[in-house]
Amino acid sequence: MLKEILENVRKTKPLIHSITNYVSMNDCANLLLACGASPIMAEDPLEVEEITTRCSGLYLNIGTLNQQKVSAMVLAGKKANALGHTVVLDPVGAGASTFRSESAKMLLDKIHFSAIRGNLSEIKSLALDCENVGGVDVAQAECVTEENLEQVADFAKKFAKKTGAIIVITGQQDIVADERNVYLVSNGHTMLRNITGVGCQLSALIAAYITANPGNTLEAVLAAVCAMGVCGEKSYNRLKPEEGSGTYRMYLMDAVNLLNGDELEQLAKYKKYN
Amino acid sequence: MLKEILENVRKTKPLIHSITNYVSMNDCANLLLACGASPIMAEDPLEVEEITTRCSGLYLNIGTLNQQKVSAMVLAGKKANALGHTVVLDPVGAGASTFRSESAKMLLDKIHFSAIRGNLSEIKSLALDCENVGGVDVAQAECVTEENLEQVADFAKKFAKKTGAIIVITGQQDIVADERNVYLVSNGHTMLRNITGVGCQLSALIAAYITANPGNTLEAVLAAVCAMGVCGEKSYNRLKPEEGSGTYRMYLMDAVNLLNGDELEQLAKYKKYN
Amino acid sequence: MLKEILENVRKTKPLIHSITNYVSMNDCANLLLACGASPIMAEDPLEVEEITTRCSGLYLNIGTLNQQKVSAMVLAGKKANALGHTVVLDPVGAGASTFRSESAKMLLDKIHFSAIRGNLSEIKSLALDCENVGGVDVAQAECVTEENLEQVADFAKKFAKKTGAIIVITGQQDIVADERNVYLVSNGHTMLRNITGVGCQLSALIAAYITANPGNTLEAVLAAVCAMGVCGEKSYNRLKPEEGSGTYRMYLMDAVNLLNGDELEQLAKYKKYN
Repeated sequence: MLKEILENVRKTKPLIHSITNYVSMNDCANLLLACGASPIMAEDPLEVEEITTRCSGLYLNIGTLNQQKVSAMVLAGKKANALGHTVVLDPVGAGASTFRSESAKMLLDKIHFSAIRGNLSEIKSLALDCENVGGVDVAQAECVTEENLEQVADFAKKFAKKTGAIIVITGQQDIVADERNVYLVSNGHTMLRNITGVGCQLSALIAAYITANPGNTLEAVLAAVCAMGVCGEKSYNRLKPEEGSGTYRMYLMDAVNLLNGDELEQLAKYKKYN
Repeated sequence: MLKEILENVRKTKPLIHSITNYVSMNDCANLLLACGASPIMAEDPLEVEEITTRCSGLYLNIGTLNQQKVSAMVLAGKKANALGHTVVLDPVGAGASTFRSESAKMLLDKIHFSAIRGNLSEIKSLALDCENVGGVDVAQAECVTEENLEQVADFAKKFAKKTGAIIVITGQQDIVADERNVYLVSNGHTMLRNITGVGCQLSALIAAYITANPGNTLEAVLAAVCAMGVCGEKSYNRLKPEEGSGTYRMYLMDAVNLLNGDELEQLAKYKKYN
Repeated sequence: MLKEILENVRKTKPLIHSITNYVSMNDCANLLLACGASPIMAEDPLEVEEITTRCSGLYLNIGTLNQQKVSAMVLAGKKANALGHTVVLDPVGAGASTFRSESAKMLLDKIHFSAIRGNLSEIKSLALDCENVGGVDVAQAECVTEENLEQVADFAKKFAKKTGAIIVITGQQDIVADERNVYLVSNGHTMLRNITGVGCQLSALIAAYITANPGNTLEAVLAAVCAMGVCGEKSYNRLKPEEGSGTYRMYLMDAVNLLNGDELEQLAKYKKYN
């Protein structure tokens, strides 16, 4: 299944409109090309509706946010919803400032997302004042552990139900949930923490995978999360002693570019959780 | 001839002011350094005239456009024109939104460009409502082919005449035209499509080459187009099986940095067309 | 001493808020991760105070400046001062436009900096209209030479006294000064001039080093300046004939990521000046 999902990206070359942060914008554009998709970046409210109309997926990322970008995201998101496009949200830094938290919640209010990806604290900041979503255990959790896994999985399902989006919580283990199903993904490598924008790139990859696999959203998200983790592992295995985070970053892009469906099928480590 | 043109860049180290998009801004700065030129990036209307006055070339690129950047481009462009500097336009995404198309046309109205580089659809969107420039054949063409080559070459010459700029249409074959002459360049490699911002980088290179070769604009543009294509080929030849688009991107920068005049002379593949 | 300073960065992983230019923003984020620190980028006046409150260091860089960023820098800088955080200024392009020069001086007026790093012309443009700081010799100097070294060293000490900041003037030799002491650093390599944003990255590194070494600011800055120079040398030594500025850029990041305290101690070339 994962194999076909990856191959659909290379076959259909989905065009993804990204409104994203300035830190990893270049990485996200290169990542989309590497996986077989195509990027367009446009962020002025004057043009985002037209641009998104030409695409089949939209990726919104709230890093280095400003008010004009928020307006652009709302316009693009509503248009993408009206056209039935994939829309993915990466709430970078939600919880770190009132502006980001409120902007993220406002986007959630006005736009229907196909998927939302963040770390636990970002997703919590979006969800925890929703009624009936999270309990005290999750509110106090800093990251996903064996102890709180059941609570976090339940929280992810409830937030997926509330939003209608696939919820991805990345960390040492990644959680992929819709309102009924939870997958745990254990691919990845701690070296990924040494380079910036890996989360942003994963969210862009998710947008490409969903767009290329209509009607198969949960599996597409799962495949993208596994793919990024597998690429993180392969890149680590390629490192020689004199090679550090600079080389690792390049290897990661190579890995995304060269990953094939059979490798993904073989190296993906995920399991259904309850 | 190409050799001397390249060497003039390394000798004179032209300072190029770039107002460009956030996706490939870092790549363009590194590209300018790699080829022997020097970059300055400044985009606030408050300072662009002063900054451009200190430079000898100006590069305008309308990716990730916003209204403030458009104002900055007009101010910088007019100042550069008044000072007799090189000015190069890259109309990224012209035709993809009304804002970009109209901004590009407005820049064309107010600023005289030394060269304009884009793909066929970008150049068409600038030119096709100019009187007497393009016919139906070109209007319907998606890219340059053997069948429409004559029409596109004629279109490029007419648009060059109309604008007084060298027109560069990049694609599988690249077209370089002034109002009387058309060159076809067949350097390059399809792998270049796997990385973002190659077109932006080529436009920056064109700005550096023209600036370092006053009075020899057509040949300077031709040399830059050949140089980027040659670097794309050399980088591809350097790739090992486990290396993908991440490594290729780095090799491309290496190639621009290390390319010498003799290699360019020897590897350039261009011919005069009619 | 240098060894311990470097190791304190890896141990304490200081979180550095950066308001910086779009050219090297990604490089600065990756550099901070490579050295063991953590980056947050946020630049909207609406959120910078909250964001900087969560961090322990602040890095302000005036490349690709605009008025909104200036407002954000003032808000973040005042908040960081109130909280006793490290604040580092990189006055990129001060002297190149009235907007940059005046913005840099205004920042200097309103914010107390722990350190200020620039090339001679940038630092001069900040300092030379301060009373009793620079003389005619320095005003006319383009760069630091054996002949003007004494004058420049004296100028740096006076400007350090005036501002209460450690002053770093980078060039063929680097000068690190507080109001009483001057160090000369002779690490580095000319190849560093072939890549963009090395100065920006060094300033980010300085912010991380100071933050991780409270009460030891002069030595922390000295260690950061030596570290970047050592990494420039190591990266150059790793280059093969077919490798140019693209590869060198990656090697530099690797070197920062892998540098250990013993190497730094052993390879640092600095001396106390008068």
